Order: sequence, then C-alpha cells, then structure tokens
Amino acid sequence: MSLTIWCNTEFRPNAARLLNEGLGSHRLIVAQSANASVLTAGASDASLAEADIALGQPHVDDCLRYKRLRWIELTTAGYTRYDRDDLRETLRARGTVMTNASSVFADPCAQHVLAMMLGLARQLPASLRDQLTDQSWNYTERRYDSRLLTGQTVLLLGYGAIGRRLAELLAPFGMTVLAVRRQVRSERGVRIIPEEHVSAALAQADHVVNILPDNDSTRNYVNARRLSCFKSGARFYNVGRGTTVDQNALLDALHSGRLGAAYLDVTDPEPLPPSHALWTAPNCYITPHTAGGRHDQDEALVRHFLANLAAFEGGGTLVDQIV
Amino acid sequence: MSLTIWCNTEFRPNAARLLNEGLGSHRLIVAQSANASVLTAGASDASLAEADIALGQPHVDDCLRYKRLRWIELTTAGYTRYDRDDLRETLRARGTVMTNASSVFADPCAQHVLAMMLGLARQLPASLRDQLTDQSWNYTERRYDSRLLTGQTVLLLGYGAIGRRLAELLAPFGMTVLAVRRQVRSERGVRIIPEEHVSAALAQADHVVNILPDNDSTRNYVNARRLSCFKSGARFYNVGRGTTVDQNALLDALHSGRLGAAYLDVTDPEPLPPSHALWTAPNCYITPHTAGGRHDQDEALVRHFLANLAAFEGGGTLVDQIV
Repeated sequence: MSLTIWCNTEFRPNAARLLNEGLGSHRLIVAQSANASVLTAGASDASLAEADIALGQPHVDDCLRYKRLRWIELTTAGYTRYDRDDLRETLRARGTVMTNASSVFADPCAQHVLAMMLGLARQLPASLRDQLTDQSWNYTERRYDSRLLTGQTVLLLGYGAIGRRLAELLAPFGMTVLAVRRQVRSERGVRIIPEEHVSAALAQADHVVNILPDNDSTRNYVNARRLSCFKSGARFYNVGRGTTVDQNALLDALHSGRLGAAYLDVTDPEPLPPSHALWTAPNCYITPHTAGGRHDQDEALVRHFLANLAAFEGGGTLVDQIV
Repeated sequence: MSLTIWCNTEFRPNAARLLNEGLGSHRLIVAQSANASVLTAGASDASLAEADIALGQPHVDDCLRYKRLRWIELTTAGYTRYDRDDLRETLRARGTVMTNASSVFADPCAQHVLAMMLGLARQLPASLRDQLTDQSWNYTERRYDSRLLTGQTVLLLGYGAIGRRLAELLAPFGMTVLAVRRQVRSERGVRIIPEEHVSAALAQADHVVNILPDNDSTRNYVNARRLSCFKSGARFYNVGRGTTVDQNALLDALHSGRLGAAYLDVTDPEPLPPSHALWTAPNCYITPHTAGGRHDQDEALVRHFLANLAAFEGGGTLVDQIV
C-alpha cells in the first residue's frame, strides 16, 4: 500500500537521496517552507491534509486538525511544543502515534557531556586560554589543578536515553552515578534518587549534569535554593534546556566561587546575545547548542525514520515512541 | 630491620606527612637539593652513599657509584635519563632493582588523551575561541562539524600502562583500537600491529595517539614519511615525548590541511617558547605537559612508594619494576 509522507525538514543532499531511495513506492510531499534547522518550529502547511505520515516539525495546530495523519515522526529529541495534554488526547483517540529522534541524539549528547567533564578535569579550557593569549607554560598550576574522574560522584538531573548512554561511557571511570527522576525504577550501575532526596544528592556530587526537558515542572529547576545545596567547587553541566536554570542564580554561584565551573550547551535565550553576562562569568564555558550535533545527523535522522517506516508498515514496534 | 631511605623529591605537606608516618622505624634522608617538580633531574648528592633505597630522581652517576643502594624508585613514568645499558648492567649485577611510577600516571594520561579526543570531536576548542573573541553563536557550523567517536579507528603508537587504560576507557565507544609495539602479543580488545605494518595502520586511523618514550629508536618517529601515510583529516595526539615528533614535518602537515588537528601535551623544547610556530599553527592545540597531572599526585606517589616498600621488606613483587 502506498502511503503519503509529508516532510518539512530540508535534509542535506546525501540524506535527501537516502530518503528518496528508501521510500520505494510511497509518495513524498515536501512542505512549502522546509527548514534546515531541526530546532525551528515549522509553519502551518495545508498539504499536510493529504498525508498519512508527517516527518519533521509539523505545526501543532496541523497535527490537531488533519485527521488522516496516522504517524508523526519528530526530527528532534526535545518536544516541548508537542508536550500538551490536548494533543496527546487527540492523537490517542485517533490512534495516531508520535515518535521523536531521541536515539539519534543520545550518543552525541552523552559524548558531549563527557567531553565537557573531562575538559574541565584536565584543565583544557585554561590551557587553551593560555595558548590564545600569552602562550605561557603554566606547568605546575595546571598540573596540580588537574583532576581524575575516577572515584568521583556524578548526579544526573533527568534520566532517559542520554543519561543511560552517559552511564555506559562513565562505567570504566568507576564513578558513583546517581540520577533523579520521577519513576524510581532501579537501573544497572545507576542509583535512582527520588525528588525528595535531591538536596542530599546535590551535596554529594562532584558533577551535576542537567538533562531536563523544558516543561511546567522543570522551569527554573536549578534555582538559588538547589544551587545552595551543591557541594562547594562542584561542576555543573547543562545539555537539557536553558529554561530549566535560573541564570541569575547561576551567575551568583559562579561569581561567589561556590560553584567550581559551569559548562552550558543550552541557554535562555538562544542564541545567547553577545552582551549576556554568562559569556564572561568566571569559569563559565558555553557551546552553542551543539551537544546533539553529529556530522551525519541528517543521514541518521533518515535512517531512523526509514527503520520506523518499515516497522510501521509491518506492524512492528516503533523506536522512540512518545505518544 | 631499619632501612635508610634517601629522597630528593620535595613533596607537598600532606604527602610529606603521609611518607613520614608510613616509614615507621626507617630513617629518611632528604637530599640537599630536593625538587618540587618530578620532571627535573636531580643533582648529585653525597648523602646517597648511606642509603639502601632512593626515592625521586637520583643522579645517574650516583646510582652507578653508590653500591649500598638496593632499590631505586623513580617518581616519574618516563625514565629516559636512566634508560642506559651501563646502568641496567651495573644495577643487575649488584641485585639492585629500579621501579618507576607509571601506574600513578597511567590513569591521568589516558583521561587526558580521551579529553583531547572528545574535545576535538565535539568542537570544544572552536566554541571556546568564539566565546573568548566575538561571542558568536555558530550553531550550524559547529553542529555539523561535530563528530562521534563511535565506530572510529584509533591507532596507539606505543602500548603500555597508558595505552591499556585508554583502551579500557574507549571500550564503550565501540572503536577499533590498534596499537604498534615491538612485542606482538595479543591483548583483549586491542589489535597489535607489528612495525612493518604501521603505514597501513596509519592510513586507516581517524585518531593517532603517540605514547612513545624518548630513546634512540623513537626519536623523530613521527616524521614526514609517516605523516604522509596518515588518513586525510586524521587527528594526532602526543602524550609521549616531544622528541619523538619531527615538529617541522608536523607544522607542514597542519599548514597543508592534510592533518585534521594536533593536540600536543609534549613538545621539544619544554617550555615551548612563546615565539614557537606550533602555538599558532592551524588546528594545533597545546597543554603544558599536564597529561600526567593529578591533584593528588604527591599523595599517590607516596602511596605507590609505601606499597612497594612493604613488598620490598616482605619479599613480595614490586609494582612497575623496570630493572
């Protein structure tokens, strides 16, 4: 049976070719305004009315409106725009499923976090600053400031695909891995902490990794009160969403020296304006929302979609189903 | 039986206390000119004549001269100054053993290499340069330049304690790990390459990690001929010794763009003078010989020595024996 697939992501040429080849006899509709950045909200598009399947970032109103849609695959891991009870209820009532691309982005995000952790531990930003400024050879200072991750404690705020992959990467370091999440199910190698014990866990952690999505319950989760629970000198990382941190409280913690360092991949707003105080706060390092980046992103998104398409046609289980 | 232990390393206070407490009834002689940097050659010191054991960086002539010495523990992993046939023969004939501190430095060196590999893969130096200069938000460029280590190939030049630890840390990435060394013994998870096949291995590797010590057979090992075998765009790391690289050939490979990047922890000379061309070569990053650095270095050296002392007294096996 031939299905109609609507897409509003503008994939790079190799990935677009892979998609076209993989679709076989199915029909592809490319949206009027397709977008090369998977993070950009899609515009409403009447051609979605004809589609059985949507791939990309369809407008939420369209998802609610067009009854023919049986499956929506988002090209992101985050899905704040779609995290609405009315949408979930409408899709469920209609038997429409929704998937995201979390398994495409989990590995790069986890590797990005480990890169940040090891970078700070090994004083790489400080040495690069020396290289870019006076080319001084600060052997003794950098050497005694260097750390081993071995035996340290890391606390993950939020625990899903990224946290699971990060725990795998951290296994050879022999760290104590704690994670806060709502469902207190045990996980191999990771101690799950219920929300009511988070203050005690924050006080133990050498590294606090924020992987929280943006929603009503996570906004400003890392606030002054929680920051005051951090162990002195602890290091904070954010690859979740900028809105989950009270950035003024974070600036205070950095300026007072209580927080050892922050390495942020997400901020509020994005792009972070050049005048923003986070750029120049002490021991604060920023990457421009690249944690999920991978050279082969578009090919990986297309492969993820095609594997799910085969499952969809064959009645199998779709990967990364969120509704 | 009370032994006399000579030491010319000036340990930090906590470690010095740990050493004094751990020595029990043994006598400690501190050399006239003790040195806080373990990398500095020690001066000749007549008080070594009375010692059964030397800890630190004793002068080679003293090691040859003083017959009472039964055990020498070096406070470094590298031992170029002591890597001499005449010294080995003299010590062996006398029944004197020599140990180094390679197991103290293997874990930090391996973590430093992984920090460099992940840093380049995740574009952290490029993002930090943006932060330190114009605070631009290069989302698309940095994101598509980001890489996963997953599935890539790494070639280790030299394979000992550091390489073994690095292979452990790389295991969760599912990389192909190749290593060149003289003894072609198999190792779990690592394919050992004999020297005659190194050109083919260099052509396969996305990452080439130099862990070679400095000696007659390794000097300028990474020369123009070997660099020309590298896969285009490959990344080169050096935590061995600066003398094992022909730095002019390295500069050529960086300027031509054939080499993707170099991350060097060791150079020739050290400190690298501010005017040296490596500081500003394209895609060349430098740390000031800090790969072995760890906050607890002195305590770890003392613990290593005390554990070996217990083995020495009890007739057990000494860790990291090199003669």
